[in-house]
Amino acid sequence: MPNILRREDISFLLYDVFGLEKIAAHERFAESGREVFDQVLDTAERVAEEHFQPHAAKLDANEPSFDGERVSIIPEVRAALDVYIDSGFLTAPFDHELGGMQLPYSVHIAIGAWFVASNWSVANYPVLTAAAANLLAEHANDQQKADWLAPMLEGRFFGTMCLSEPHVGSSVGDIRTRAEPQPDGSYRLFGSKMWISGGEHELSENIVHLVLAKIPGGPAGTKGISLFIVPRIVEGERNDIRLLSLNHKMGCRGTVNCALNFGETDGAIGWLIGEPHQGLAQMFTMMNEMRIGVGMAAAALAYTGYLHALDYAKERTQGRPLTARDPAQPMVPIIEHADVKRMLLQQKVYAEGSLALALFAATLVDLEKTGDREDARRAALLLDLLTPIVKSWPSEYGLRANETAIQVLGGAGYTRDYPLERFYRDNRLNHIHEGTKGIQGLDLLGRKVTAENGAALRALIEEMSADASASDQAEAKDLTRYANEVGATTLKMISLSADAGPEVFLSNATLYLDMLGHLVVGWLWLKQADSAAKALPDATGSRRDFLQGKITAARYFFRYEMPTIETTAELLKQMDRTTVEAEAAIF
Amino acid sequence: MPNILRREDISFLLYDVFGLEKIAAHERFAESGREVFDQVLDTAERVAEEHFQPHAAKLDANEPSFDGERVSIIPEVRAALDVYIDSGFLTAPFDHELGGMQLPYSVHIAIGAWFVASNWSVANYPVLTAAAANLLAEHANDQQKADWLAPMLEGRFFGTMCLSEPHVGSSVGDIRTRAEPQPDGSYRLFGSKMWISGGEHELSENIVHLVLAKIPGGPAGTKGISLFIVPRIVEGERNDIRLLSLNHKMGCRGTVNCALNFGETDGAIGWLIGEPHQGLAQMFTMMNEMRIGVGMAAAALAYTGYLHALDYAKERTQGRPLTARDPAQPMVPIIEHADVKRMLLQQKVYAEGSLALALFAATLVDLEKTGDREDARRAALLLDLLTPIVKSWPSEYGLRANETAIQVLGGAGYTRDYPLERFYRDNRLNHIHEGTKGIQGLDLLGRKVTAENGAALRALIEEMSADASASDQAEAKDLTRYANEVGATTLKMISLSADAGPEVFLSNATLYLDMLGHLVVGWLWLKQADSAAKALPDATGSRRDFLQGKITAARYFFRYEMPTIETTAELLKQMDRTTVEAEAAIF
Repeated sequence: MPNILRREDISFLLYDVFGLEKIAAHERFAESGREVFDQVLDTAERVAEEHFQPHAAKLDANEPSFDGERVSIIPEVRAALDVYIDSGFLTAPFDHELGGMQLPYSVHIAIGAWFVASNWSVANYPVLTAAAANLLAEHANDQQKADWLAPMLEGRFFGTMCLSEPHVGSSVGDIRTRAEPQPDGSYRLFGSKMWISGGEHELSENIVHLVLAKIPGGPAGTKGISLFIVPRIVEGERNDIRLLSLNHKMGCRGTVNCALNFGETDGAIGWLIGEPHQGLAQMFTMMNEMRIGVGMAAAALAYTGYLHALDYAKERTQGRPLTARDPAQPMVPIIEHADVKRMLLQQKVYAEGSLALALFAATLVDLEKTGDREDARRAALLLDLLTPIVKSWPSEYGLRANETAIQVLGGAGYTRDYPLERFYRDNRLNHIHEGTKGIQGLDLLGRKVTAENGAALRALIEEMSADASASDQAEAKDLTRYANEVGATTLKMISLSADAGPEVFLSNATLYLDMLGHLVVGWLWLKQADSAAKALPDATGSRRDFLQGKITAARYFFRYEMPTIETTAELLKQMDRTTVEAEAAIF
Repeated sequence: MPNILRREDISFLLYDVFGLEKIAAHERFAESGREVFDQVLDTAERVAEEHFQPHAAKLDANEPSFDGERVSIIPEVRAALDVYIDSGFLTAPFDHELGGMQLPYSVHIAIGAWFVASNWSVANYPVLTAAAANLLAEHANDQQKADWLAPMLEGRFFGTMCLSEPHVGSSVGDIRTRAEPQPDGSYRLFGSKMWISGGEHELSENIVHLVLAKIPGGPAGTKGISLFIVPRIVEGERNDIRLLSLNHKMGCRGTVNCALNFGETDGAIGWLIGEPHQGLAQMFTMMNEMRIGVGMAAAALAYTGYLHALDYAKERTQGRPLTARDPAQPMVPIIEHADVKRMLLQQKVYAEGSLALALFAATLVDLEKTGDREDARRAALLLDLLTPIVKSWPSEYGLRANETAIQVLGGAGYTRDYPLERFYRDNRLNHIHEGTKGIQGLDLLGRKVTAENGAALRALIEEMSADASASDQAEAKDLTRYANEVGATTLKMISLSADAGPEVFLSNATLYLDMLGHLVVGWLWLKQADSAAKALPDATGSRRDFLQGKITAARYFFRYEMPTIETTAELLKQMDRTTVEAEAAIF
């Protein structure tokens, strides 16, 4: 069994729960529609199974190496990427006029989930390239698009994002890389960049680095950051970019990740994108997309881990029911034991809940683009609020699911004979890259929740209330109660913050992030249970089991997981100063 | 900075909190006493720092390999073990008459923590050997002791425990290895054993495998299990034991772990320990000791991770205070940020709380041996109840601490340039070996809590109440409240179980384990805060900071962690059937 993802669930989420049918009716998708989406998703499943999954363990055991001259990567990676590109996945969400398939972003994210779940380290290259290409499509001029975007969409050039430097990551305003303007309108870049995924390799003809740097004389901090196209190769010559060292990571080992030096001699040739000092805002086009991608990746890794654990739990026999322990009787499959069922339900709610969250965010991107004015506005409002949660909740609970998947297998799960430990190592990255969990918490509580007098949170709670009112599930009342509790907690915190000050207000932003995340995922579980209940009367056989599973999982989430909202809310309302007041010396 | 453990904290826990002074006064320690204990602990610190820590990363990157003939291990391992053995650590807790140092078990566990924290993979060999030797000291006959125990205590022979088989781990009653009696009183063993740590190597002259097997004709299930000494080499010849394969693990890579075949030709020669069919009870001498050892190991890994993260947080600068964000000002050490302080406090309460728990259990072992009749009885009662918690709580929350330690370092923590990711990979083992978390939960709720009408839990809660009454800390009242809540929840569950049946009663045993664990660790934090408060008036400088840190950490634990007890208690009281009723098909 490949156990990559469950195709049925993806359709259920996209169509039954999030109403992709309505989005598909938009003129943008006149040439595609559900039939095409389904074909593309079927192809993604097949390509992931045949070309990505088979060498995932080998790639993990044989990470890219650097001999001082070139980076070597096992040949299966290039072969898999060829099939991926030939199948058109790289350009799935791009406009027809750019040579793209013009598919909904939510279908693009669902495609991505197949490749991450089957072999994340390989999937990273095209995911990064597509995000960089999207940035260029939005902000580059026509010449730049012709020179760099076009070959990227053809799969000939790959892309990267270069933000962090050895001395700064989260505090991006403190970067030191400088870009000196040249008489011909180009720039020369000087500086060191860190944590560059796909930063050096020979998988593509060229690598288009999108680099944040400062033009001398500009404003201090984030206001003085500009964005540059800095290709690995310019007019057939290697640009002045040197690979300093590869980073040797715990997981995600198959993706090259490295430190790059720009401008050790004459400066790396680069071209400014758009106007000076707009770099951070431009990069956020890419960053916001990457953050949804991180949530999707964490969800996909959790999901494949869950399916592997489930498979094992059905096959492996061990022990007997507590009520029939006669050693003369054969042992039972471990899925018969309550604690194993609990571990599977926990993984199911985390994995499927995470995937639902990522796909929901992706449908908001689609609605922003294709909905009527009011729908688009509301989608943008919700998406902006939810992005830190979409990035963080799967990173937290998807990892927990992978941890539990190992536990279902016991000692076997701890060995490299099974992929569970790899998923676990891989998934640990997701709280770190594209903005750490701490940064997401500050973004959520410090910006998104308080913006426009709390309009986004109000809109979110309204959506929840509307769904709860229309629901027949027993959990609907609980959702309303928890939503009110979160709303009241937020108001209380804001009212206390006038006296307490911003440091105390934001000191537990990470806990707030987890709390609001649980509320949102609880809502998405209610939506799933509602859709399942609606489809149940006509369902038979395995379809019935699938729908029943959604209803059971929703119940589990509300009984076992949602109550943590109350504990966290209680703590948050106290505006506790324990952490703020702890002096460095007492640790 | 080696950042292995904090020597000051070990003394604080052993003497100030758990009253080792009183134990030290016992005639058993007439030749040693505090001064000797301290010297031994100082030596452990030095040997760990000089001989264990330096090659820990190298060993992880170069795990033992098997060429079909022999297992190769980097030479630093043997060298480190030589120093360890020459320093007398192997025999620290054994009686003088066996050539041991006759030190308290709690000092032995504290010594062990230094070696686990500095290089767990190496520490495993002597830890296993000491536990196997202790089993032989208790159950073997004089000839067996002379033949096998004596060379083990000299450090010439190492020991293993062979329980699991490829088809069974947790369900030990279902093992198939059989032991055929021979005319000379020996046995021949036939069967496959799995997950054998230290199962094959040339680090020692011989390996003494302690093997669970069934004598044909005996009772079915666990009642028919006997225990055998099966050495790797018998009278200069290799015994009929073959290494099938090494297990390639995610972490703890430096410890050989393998599958062994016993009796592929004539049968592996072995000798019965004690009477037939007593094997499981005998093995539990070793198993209970190993379970305290697992808790200690998980604590030690959490602790060293915390110290590494703390060091980094004090050195690394990034960003500015929320209230002074002028980019012209220099960046501040990240320990100044509230969320980093929260992450450090979380690690501190998990790591130091786990170590406190392991050392507390070890002092109970000491009290059982040296206390007056009533003290000894009470210590035995508590120890029996607490063992699954001592094994599991640090495995759960120590791992969480390692996860957070990585987060403090960000991308750097995710690389193999720092040891954090190794600690995290290593620590993931602890919920699996020596009885999985699920097994610990069943042991706690299904046996320990309900035994003798709940006498042990009552005794535990009495101890807590006594400490709470004597405490001046604000948290004392909370402890009483939580203890009462746990007591009431337990009674409620027992009263409902008559109708609900054992499967429902035990279905959330794992959650019960976490809940009671939090209560116990909360209690130990109150004890630490009390001891710190008592010492505070006379303290100055860094001692004062250390004591203040204990008080702050206790407050953090009660505010941020203890409330989860209520959420779990609420769920447990409902005797929820969601997991029990979930059919395999719905997953």
